[in-house]
Amino acid sequence: METKNINLGIFGFGCVGQGLYEVLNRTKGINARIKKICIKDPNKPRPIDMSYFTTDADEILDDPTIDVVVELINETDAAFSIVSKALKNGKAVVSASKRMIAENLPALYQLQVDNKVPFLYEASSCASIPIIRNLEEYYDNDLLNAVEGICNGSTNYILTRIFEDNMSFDEALKKAQELGFAETDPSLDVEGYDPKFKIVILLLHAFGTFVRPEEVFNFGINHLNDFDIQFARQRNSTIKLIGNCRRQNGSVNAYVLPHLVREHNLLYDVYNEYNGVLLESAFTDKQFFVGKGAGGTATGSAVLSDISALLYNYRYEYKKIKQSNQPAFTNDVQLKVYVRYKTPDQVNLTEFYNISEKYESPEYRYVVGTINLQKLKDAAWLKNKEVNLLVLEH
Amino acid sequence: METKNINLGIFGFGCVGQGLYEVLNRTKGINARIKKICIKDPNKPRPIDMSYFTTDADEILDDPTIDVVVELINETDAAFSIVSKALKNGKAVVSASKRMIAENLPALYQLQVDNKVPFLYEASSCASIPIIRNLEEYYDNDLLNAVEGICNGSTNYILTRIFEDNMSFDEALKKAQELGFAETDPSLDVEGYDPKFKIVILLLHAFGTFVRPEEVFNFGINHLNDFDIQFARQRNSTIKLIGNCRRQNGSVNAYVLPHLVREHNLLYDVYNEYNGVLLESAFTDKQFFVGKGAGGTATGSAVLSDISALLYNYRYEYKKIKQSNQPAFTNDVQLKVYVRYKTPDQVNLTEFYNISEKYESPEYRYVVGTINLQKLKDAAWLKNKEVNLLVLEH
Repeated sequence: METKNINLGIFGFGCVGQGLYEVLNRTKGINARIKKICIKDPNKPRPIDMSYFTTDADEILDDPTIDVVVELINETDAAFSIVSKALKNGKAVVSASKRMIAENLPALYQLQVDNKVPFLYEASSCASIPIIRNLEEYYDNDLLNAVEGICNGSTNYILTRIFEDNMSFDEALKKAQELGFAETDPSLDVEGYDPKFKIVILLLHAFGTFVRPEEVFNFGINHLNDFDIQFARQRNSTIKLIGNCRRQNGSVNAYVLPHLVREHNLLYDVYNEYNGVLLESAFTDKQFFVGKGAGGTATGSAVLSDISALLYNYRYEYKKIKQSNQPAFTNDVQLKVYVRYKTPDQVNLTEFYNISEKYESPEYRYVVGTINLQKLKDAAWLKNKEVNLLVLEH
Repeated sequence: METKNINLGIFGFGCVGQGLYEVLNRTKGINARIKKICIKDPNKPRPIDMSYFTTDADEILDDPTIDVVVELINETDAAFSIVSKALKNGKAVVSASKRMIAENLPALYQLQVDNKVPFLYEASSCASIPIIRNLEEYYDNDLLNAVEGICNGSTNYILTRIFEDNMSFDEALKKAQELGFAETDPSLDVEGYDPKFKIVILLLHAFGTFVRPEEVFNFGINHLNDFDIQFARQRNSTIKLIGNCRRQNGSVNAYVLPHLVREHNLLYDVYNEYNGVLLESAFTDKQFFVGKGAGGTATGSAVLSDISALLYNYRYEYKKIKQSNQPAFTNDVQLKVYVRYKTPDQVNLTEFYNISEKYESPEYRYVVGTINLQKLKDAAWLKNKEVNLLVLEH
């Protein structure tokens, strides 16, 4: 039950960094204090005393009195080199950079093993939902079948506005940006890259399988039009951008795709900037976690939880990597999908395994059918903004 | 990252014990084996080899090769003495006995401190939801405001049948018993004692406050009649039996009471034997956990997770007990309630702080008003089966 006092060195003081500062200030009983904050622009006005700040990374990385490095910057390469150097210097590291982590998981795992220091990143996946820690700590003995969830707050906010308030996609995106849920360049969110990085991280902690982000197919909500929305409504469904990894026939597959979701599905009721994760296992059936998926203090709070865990010498054990039965990754699974397009030349229907519905009008056409995930991933025709894809509920 | 092999001594081989046996058998990668199972009745037919069984508790408790005692019996006093002796003998203990734990928390805490051995009991609260571990590990730095939840699978199953299938209370109870969700003597469930024991346990891990079960008011669903159900329906609500502990004005209050719940509430969608727990905190707003709250394998799986955690030397830290700011327990809060009765002499309306609605018919009367929780707890008139109580949504 021993605890210690720790000094923090923070990289980045944007939305999450300031959220962490606020959360840390309002929390009693945690023996952590900020010693230094490394920023890029020394001339930007800051809400706290300037003596906290430096622009020299090594002032943190080489300071032997700093125990924990908290990495909260946006640039992937810079983030990786900060985290690597910190771990090599024997410092524990906390990070919220999903992209950097997802792209470097094998190296980051090895750095922890080699340097015997912990690296925690709960805030990188679903912000306030403690999903990594739950997968790490709780499901190691369970026969986990699937992890499925809404892992991106800004697209969920946009979809909620579309379906609850009849907003257009553009209006809803603008509103999300105003509220700070979406980045100025929203493509990582609306094209489904951000949730894919999270799925790559969750896949490792759920099944012990390393997969590179580029192996996982993502398709976002930026092709969505009124016809698709009407199609969903006619089927008593809403649309949710869902990331999924599922064990099937000894392998594991994963993707991020917009789904038609009906009311009985627990994910149906995850609204606004909230995230929701549904676990399916052999013994407990479904377990469901919901929490805020965006916002500075929600994410800052997840970062602080990692810092607090370090005070108690917590580290990820990556138990499933060491088990002998981790499944191989595959895209060789069939999905039942709706594909909407305008003219027949825009899609390649021969790639479908079967087609069960076909609709034609002067304005739009669609098919409902079964297609292999790898074929979808390779389909150049899906890049056309006049073509959209929705997964139908199994 | 060191793990060890452990030998288990199990007390009890009922629903949860057999669930544990099944889960353990189907789980690879956990180095735990059952050495002995202590049962009461040696003549009852058992589904596994008789060499596992003994009727002599000391054959487990005094066996130095047994590392972990798993206590899964029904009798509270016997369970406490088994757990006490096991802890004193330096064995780690896992238990699912909510009543025994809730009634003995201070002693059980002290036994862990004195004997430096872990005692884990995740399965005691909300079965498959890892709520204790989440409160322990994750919320220690958060400004937690409330823990609120559906913590009893059998009453939730009954209420679901009533509201979804228009069953009567008696039909629904019978159905729950047939499915094994309710005990033959269902009073602990339907009168709200079982969820109260869980709330007492959660209160400690959420706020660091010890409270005796008899200090907490519980009122169940066994007074519910068709008039109440109609009242709920008219207000576009369902009824859920909800346990609640909430920090207010520096103190913490708790109770288990049937609530009117509207559709926008996350607890509305917790159906059948599922449990749901909603956490409210300053930084993350609402976090919501859903999972199966009854059934042998769901509970057995939670027990196995505790066993697995022991392999990694996990123990509850009870961090909030050691923090200086744990709130005192109080029943001095106001609740907005509906009270239904038949004749004016059956209730004492002068005890209400105010009354906002009053209804009279030859058959039933009701009032809606505000009343102090302590007054409700002391109200002898609530024992009358012709009087019912529902909390209105705040």
